[in-house]
Amino acid sequence: MHIGNYLGALKNWVRMIDQYDCIFCIVDYHAITIEYNPADMQRRILNAAAVNIAAGLDPERCIIFVQSYVPEHTELAWILNTVTPMGHLERMTQFKDKSKQHRENINAGLFTYPVLQAADILLYHGEAVPVGEDQVQHIELAREIARKFNMRYGETFPDPVEVLSDAPRIMGLDGKTKMSKSLGNYISLVETPESIWKKLSTAVTDENRKRRTDPGNPDICNLFTLHKYFSRKEQIDRINTVCRTAEIGCIECKKILSDNIVEALAPIRMRYEQLISDPDYLADILHAGAKKCRDIAVNTMTDVKKKMGLR
Amino acid sequence: MHIGNYLGALKNWVRMIDQYDCIFCIVDYHAITIEYNPADMQRRILNAAAVNIAAGLDPERCIIFVQSYVPEHTELAWILNTVTPMGHLERMTQFKDKSKQHRENINAGLFTYPVLQAADILLYHGEAVPVGEDQVQHIELAREIARKFNMRYGETFPDPVEVLSDAPRIMGLDGKTKMSKSLGNYISLVETPESIWKKLSTAVTDENRKRRTDPGNPDICNLFTLHKYFSRKEQIDRINTVCRTAEIGCIECKKILSDNIVEALAPIRMRYEQLISDPDYLADILHAGAKKCRDIAVNTMTDVKKKMGLR
Ligand code: SF4
Ligand code: SF4
Repeated sequence: MHIGNYLGALKNWVRMIDQYDCIFCIVDYHAITIEYNPADMQRRILNAAAVNIAAGLDPERCIIFVQSYVPEHTELAWILNTVTPMGHLERMTQFKDKSKQHRENINAGLFTYPVLQAADILLYHGEAVPVGEDQVQHIELAREIARKFNMRYGETFPDPVEVLSDAPRIMGLDGKTKMSKSLGNYISLVETPESIWKKLSTAVTDENRKRRTDPGNPDICNLFTLHKYFSRKEQIDRINTVCRTAEIGCIECKKILSDNIVEALAPIRMRYEQLISDPDYLADILHAGAKKCRDIAVNTMTDVKKKMGLR
Repeated sequence: MHIGNYLGALKNWVRMIDQYDCIFCIVDYHAITIEYNPADMQRRILNAAAVNIAAGLDPERCIIFVQSYVPEHTELAWILNTVTPMGHLERMTQFKDKSKQHRENINAGLFTYPVLQAADILLYHGEAVPVGEDQVQHIELAREIARKFNMRYGETFPDPVEVLSDAPRIMGLDGKTKMSKSLGNYISLVETPESIWKKLSTAVTDENRKRRTDPGNPDICNLFTLHKYFSRKEQIDRINTVCRTAEIGCIECKKILSDNIVEALAPIRMRYEQLISDPDYLADILHAGAKKCRDIAVNTMTDVKKKMGLR
């Protein structure tokens, strides 16, 4: 989880908790569709839980759980496979992209990934699904699958609808591509103050500003975008002026940003450190979440199976 | 279940009970990959159980159960999807054939059908799988999937091997194609004596034998093949002679066959009628079977998940 995810997605999720009955799922059964290190998986799961809870997914006000703890996800996915036309899956952009990235491992899990995703949603009669642009096609497919099931077996699932974040995509510290874990151009949500400064100090700014005395252009500076999220209004306004006149240098400007990011992330990082140092407590949260989900999931499956003549 | 299935498969299964720890699975989760009538499904499941038990799958000496009662089948299938190359599934002859037959419903369940089949086998560490020629490719794939899993996550599944029946394929009463339910050219294992005679009386024999006085050729007569399975040695030897000399007519020959089939099927039909008239008892058998399977399946999944870092 990096600040790009936080601003683009997580902040919206935290807001949604007040408007919806929210379920957040750590999707380990999706994660295994690409090569991974089994020895690392539990650490990744606990880490995802800790970061998300620390950033605001309060387990008292929403459900957070691990997908593989609720086997009904894969069971419903199998059923939904049987109403999902091959042609629809073949059209999925993400499958085509991932197939290119993982040429040595183009597997049937990668291909039916969106069907498991549909199961994740429909199992809980999910109606609003917060996603990024790149996932809209999958939510459309989930809607199509829900309709096909309803048409064949009778009204069962509501139409799931995508909820798009209004945050623009956050560029990485290289200023060239979207902030992303795999590209290493990110600031983690639980980055230490030292590391935040180290990463910002080498981050790309307005590339036309070669010397301290050159005027800069905040409109094309990626760090100015980050100021807009993390700095106070008067700081933003001032930088927007003094950068253009070279009254401020990039180092000083970055220092202000660094201080503000450190301050904003401090409570998240503190809560994260507490959580991650108490894996038993984290496991309890995840199991309690899974328990609530199973109760819902078992009900859904009973209804689904009855309609299909399977019980 | 018709006498073609019985001679080609079921008789072998009954023999295997003495040599192996056998598990027989009524595959409702496979059945839903083609269009079906939900209102009819439970009747089909109970019927399949009754016929198979009546024909010799004694629930005291083997396990018989319904696939959808053990959700670990679909859970393992999802996991195996992630080690199954797309290319392997695309090569499956049965998928290609079924796609042609069900053009309006080429779904992802039909496509990943062999992966669920692999899960059916590997969940119980199945080693010997009695199948017909048309399923050998799927067992080969199951073997490949087992090896891929073992390679990635450590030794877990033994190689499943196909056990082919030595019975030749039984032709239908039309003498033209394999006996098959969908073609209506069959004698059911629980057919009434009247119906057996009615079906045989119109069955195709040596087509060159147009009149009673024409000599016949048992070698090209499909009913003679059935004699070999249902009649006594001296009857078979006699018909093999007197058909060629026209000393016996097809009607008389069919009457002998009909009597022998009726006699052979009588105990099966009687046991079937008992079972099907007591659905609660049948359900108990199936649930007891599922309980035994779940105990095994849960163990397998615990091992599988541990190796994958999922628990
Ligand atoms: S002063 Fe700030 S806004 Fe201007 S170019 Fe440098 S980092 Fe960007
Ligand atoms: S007499 Fe019997 S074996 Fe000969 S052709 Fe007729 S049915 Fe076939």
